[in-house]
Amino acid sequence: MIALACDVGGTNTRMGLVHEGLLLTETVAIYRNDDFADFYAVAAAYLARAGQASVDAVCIALASVTTAEGATLTNRDWTIERGRVLTGCRAERVEFINDFEALGFSLGQAEKLRTRRLAQGDGGTKGAPRLVLGAGTGFNAAAWCPSLFDGVPHVVAAECGHMTLALAGAEEFSLQEALSRINGRASVERALSGNGLVSIYRWQCAREGVEPRFDAGADISRCAVAHSDDRCLAAANVFLRLLGRLAGDLALAYLPYDGVYLAGGVTRALAPLLESGPAFRQAFGAKGRMAGLMERFPVHLLSDDASALHGCAEWMRLSAAAR
Amino acid sequence: MIALACDVGGTNTRMGLVHEGLLLTETVAIYRNDDFADFYAVAAAYLARAGQASVDAVCIALASVTTAEGATLTNRDWTIERGRVLTGCRAERVEFINDFEALGFSLGQAEKLRTRRLAQGDGGTKGAPRLVLGAGTGFNAAAWCPSLFDGVPHVVAAECGHMTLALAGAEEFSLQEALSRINGRASVERALSGNGLVSIYRWQCAREGVEPRFDAGADISRCAVAHSDDRCLAAANVFLRLLGRLAGDLALAYLPYDGVYLAGGVTRALAPLLESGPAFRQAFGAKGRMAGLMERFPVHLLSDDASALHGCAEWMRLSAAAR
Repeated sequence: MIALACDVGGTNTRMGLVHEGLLLTETVAIYRNDDFADFYAVAAAYLARAGQASVDAVCIALASVTTAEGATLTNRDWTIERGRVLTGCRAERVEFINDFEALGFSLGQAEKLRTRRLAQGDGGTKGAPRLVLGAGTGFNAAAWCPSLFDGVPHVVAAECGHMTLALAGAEEFSLQEALSRINGRASVERALSGNGLVSIYRWQCAREGVEPRFDAGADISRCAVAHSDDRCLAAANVFLRLLGRLAGDLALAYLPYDGVYLAGGVTRALAPLLESGPAFRQAFGAKGRMAGLMERFPVHLLSDDASALHGCAEWMRLSAAAR
Repeated sequence: MIALACDVGGTNTRMGLVHEGLLLTETVAIYRNDDFADFYAVAAAYLARAGQASVDAVCIALASVTTAEGATLTNRDWTIERGRVLTGCRAERVEFINDFEALGFSLGQAEKLRTRRLAQGDGGTKGAPRLVLGAGTGFNAAAWCPSLFDGVPHVVAAECGHMTLALAGAEEFSLQEALSRINGRASVERALSGNGLVSIYRWQCAREGVEPRFDAGADISRCAVAHSDDRCLAAANVFLRLLGRLAGDLALAYLPYDGVYLAGGVTRALAPLLESGPAFRQAFGAKGRMAGLMERFPVHLLSDDASALHGCAEWMRLSAAAR
């Protein structure tokens, strides 16, 4: 059985072939969406190049609310319809899943993913949940939970980017005021996203009474990692503190005794600070009398670009096994 | 197959017999722990009264971190050991589960529970998760998630009482300072518990420059519900606002499209205000551009004293089916 896994982002689309529920990593290709009129054109180009006239199934992960009939991308004017995918890919089945749901399913094949360990924890508990969370264009998380009874995993999908951002103390209260100015409310992704990093940086500049030099999250994270700008570095450390606190809060919500995985473009851009500095780690563990519990969770950086494709593969494996 | 379900609280223990995975509600009895030397004495008294010389299995739910070998109650000096339960109850198997995990499993038999609907939502989505959360001595939550693949439910256990309490705006920032004074940190259950209600009430009195008249959460909730004391009422409304915000945040974390269930002693004591006032409802829905999504979740008050026993029964049903 050959299937097609697709990870459709706002900028790029990744595709790969899946055989018996495993991604064939050597078949993974990446396309710039700007070079194509629509999703169907990308899929046609990929399948032609792969010499694949038809596939048994297609699984499409994307940052969107999905239904069985299709989805519209959040950050691009692309609608993907079930019927047109079936025809265009000569496929028997098509499934749409949310991008973080796909990352959640990928944790069922965590041994296949490129990761880096940030904290050893107690080494991980087999059969326990795993959690993936990440800051990129937005923020979200998903938990992978193997059943207590038959071992079949379940993934808890979420909209964690819209939760209330938990801030504490006078300094962060002033940040909350700044973040709430536009919408009257500071959600998680108001701070923990690319734009969020820019907001934190502007607030940092305003506090120090200096003019902001940067407009893009990528520039701020680059200068922070290079230690070439004090305001960028300060903003990045506030970001990592808030990320650590939230990662700790979400660990308390899902108890991922088999590992917390940090994903997302901003998280990865700040990886050197995440590894070398105390900001994330201290905030992650600062849960009062639960501090000992927090030390149990292994923490990993998920740096595999094909994670969502592995998640599509795992989804298809489980779905085929259930049929 | 006859099994024994036990819900061991700090003050009372409830027991009931389970037949083929269903609680026989007419067999439910409640005991005051003070009247007994230990758990084994309660179980012996119950089984003698029920005329049950032995049982196939025992499932014990308690507010504690449990292992397969037993558990020690959080709020009472009682340790319950697997071996002694097996002998004392002449049972073949004994299982220990966390009390909120039991409430989570009870949602698999939600139609058997005494509940009251607070918000209709979109009527609920079959096959979607359900969430139970509650404020009592402490705070916690659990999510019931039917598998996408084989329908076997999984329950996500949590320690949500230790998450960071999300506060917003100048008034709540002053509350955060008050709640953090003792431990340097305001966790969820620092506010959302019986003692938390007392803390909020004291803060309310301090703001108004009046002497507190009450020391117990039960008195404060009674006067609030009776509208007989303005400070109690104000404190209860702050409590319900924080509860509503957190319930909304947890709904975003587990997406319980088949219902949110509110449990716990303090929640139930404030039920009349929960139903009649806007504090909970407004805070639950105030999630910016997710406001429409929040309206989809049905919200119920879970007022069934035997909920955890139903959860033990469901746990035993699933566990027997998997064997």
